[in-house]
Amino acid sequence: MTPGNNHARLALVPGEPAGVGPELCVRLAQRPRDYSLTAFADARSLRAAAAALGLPLQLLPPGQPALGPGELALVEVTNAVAPEFGHPDPRNAQAVIAALLQAAQGCLDGTYDGVVTGPVHKAVINEGGIAYTGTTELLAQQAGSEVVMMLANDVVRVALVTTHLPLRAVADAISARALTHTLLTTHAALRHDFGIAEPVIAVLGLNPHAGEAGHLGREELDIIEPAIATLRAQGLRLVGPLPADTAFLPAKLRGFDAVVAMYHDQGLPVLKYSGFEHAVNLTLGLPYPRVAVDHGTALELAGQGVADASSLIAAADTCARIARIRRSASGTSSTSTISKGSPA
Amino acid sequence: MTPGNNHARLALVPGEPAGVGPELCVRLAQRPRDYSLTAFADARSLRAAAAALGLPLQLLPPGQPALGPGELALVEVTNAVAPEFGHPDPRNAQAVIAALLQAAQGCLDGTYDGVVTGPVHKAVINEGGIAYTGTTELLAQQAGSEVVMMLANDVVRVALVTTHLPLRAVADAISARALTHTLLTTHAALRHDFGIAEPVIAVLGLNPHAGEAGHLGREELDIIEPAIATLRAQGLRLVGPLPADTAFLPAKLRGFDAVVAMYHDQGLPVLKYSGFEHAVNLTLGLPYPRVAVDHGTALELAGQGVADASSLIAAADTCARIARIRRSASGTSSTSTISKGSPA
Repeated sequence: MTPGNNHARLALVPGEPAGVGPELCVRLAQRPRDYSLTAFADARSLRAAAAALGLPLQLLPPGQPALGPGELALVEVTNAVAPEFGHPDPRNAQAVIAALLQAAQGCLDGTYDGVVTGPVHKAVINEGGIAYTGTTELLAQQAGSEVVMMLANDVVRVALVTTHLPLRAVADAISARALTHTLLTTHAALRHDFGIAEPVIAVLGLNPHAGEAGHLGREELDIIEPAIATLRAQGLRLVGPLPADTAFLPAKLRGFDAVVAMYHDQGLPVLKYSGFEHAVNLTLGLPYPRVAVDHGTALELAGQGVADASSLIAAADTCARIARIRRSASGTSSTSTISKGSPA
Repeated sequence: MTPGNNHARLALVPGEPAGVGPELCVRLAQRPRDYSLTAFADARSLRAAAAALGLPLQLLPPGQPALGPGELALVEVTNAVAPEFGHPDPRNAQAVIAALLQAAQGCLDGTYDGVVTGPVHKAVINEGGIAYTGTTELLAQQAGSEVVMMLANDVVRVALVTTHLPLRAVADAISARALTHTLLTTHAALRHDFGIAEPVIAVLGLNPHAGEAGHLGREELDIIEPAIATLRAQGLRLVGPLPADTAFLPAKLRGFDAVVAMYHDQGLPVLKYSGFEHAVNLTLGLPYPRVAVDHGTALELAGQGVADASSLIAAADTCARIARIRRSASGTSSTSTISKGSPA
């Protein structure tokens, strides 16, 4: 990190070039901000988005601080074919994935303080011959990290023990190990990334009514309660296992810094209902902060100038805030990443 | 039904006498209303609740219209022991269940037009030697009906394909038969009980992202989509299978008259988050309307006069509205129940 250069340096990856990602990046670039943005993208794609929106765009060389309105530094990652709004081309899959990996590598190297990613079209990447289950998994594999997916808006933060699993596989995936990992990672992120000294985490049950004392399933008694007890003994403030249907009542939510849900459709409906536009997707457990939008490629809107940039803006603001918190925690260290175990 | 006597005649069952049920009934009785209320309860229990709240209560003989403020007709169902607020006694389990069954029998006989029920304490009933899984199941068994549980507030109506099952049993319980039954029953209730001529029903997937074209589970392809297609061919307006996390976005919900969820914790968190106080629990598929509160016995609040009667009031208002709709649909018929198949 250049001494005296105090802004956070974020890597920005638009995602699918035929979707709304490029134009959301152009919109983000217009906003006053105290962090620098370096896009990993094809210049043609960003310029086409700017032209479609009638917005100014100045592409600067990588390494140059890009904080002014309309400014983006650019690391060129050239698409195989010029993207057409609304029509993703599998031949560009390679470039989409390369941009993600290069941006993340820049974070691992300490060149950037965090990465912000737009939406990727999973099917098109796979059609392009690349086995891809999601950006979260891609970055976890690259970094060799075991990660936790957290979605957050102004109302609630939800971390998931399991993510993209068929429902019939969920019960067997709820192990003491998985639960403990999720809770410790969430606890560490709330402390170190969100600056909450003693976070309170609500833990949902797996079964309806949290199993109702074993009448509706035994995982709460056999797995979840013992795991909670062990972590409580280590000082974590955990509430639960709670019935999922009432844990999200607004009066209860106000007492929790995060909710840990056992699976996707248990944890995410309230989060999306209560503020989809401003929701972001965080990957906890990487050596650097990664924050993504909480929406898809919206192909039908691409290039029309109507797509809402709220989620990408929230993602970038969140990533910059976490980068600053990590940096101030690491004191005079010249690396932009700190381990979860560092004192806050 | 007495000719010229045009108000709906509702049976009212307080539920657990040591909980908030009796005082909520007393509060409900104070309200101006155009339906008559006949409680199935122990007079001592209702009088104790009225005294604790400092509210007037006039208990009338059964059959007498009770529409005035503070008035309840009473069918006496005597408790074994005088209930003490906050301390349920298993010796009263028999009376709690008897009150429910008598009230429901009165609906089956045509003496009442619907039943409104307060919260029952499941564990205490079972401690009292009665095998009881829930009032919904109890009334379904008595009537010989196959029922569907629907929860509703001002924002959303949610019907469930499976209810109180361990999560690991859910996937195998999603059959074409169960799904078809739930959808047809929900459709019929929306038409005949809610007066919606051509209801639009959203159907959720079982798996995250509704299975993502088979990548995250095959039940959507193998079971849910074919069942939907068959019912669409019969004229039902069905949307789905939809990913559960985004189906509840407010802009989408406005286009649906109901959401059919595959299981408990998929469907209920948003419903409770978006308006727990006014939520009610409807049993669809009985020969009479049954509407219950959407909360528990709240033992810790009983007798203190602080419990919120919104859900019981909403339940009674909803039950009376459905009773009137069914009656007007049945025209000059002298019975208060109409079959789901009757023309609206």
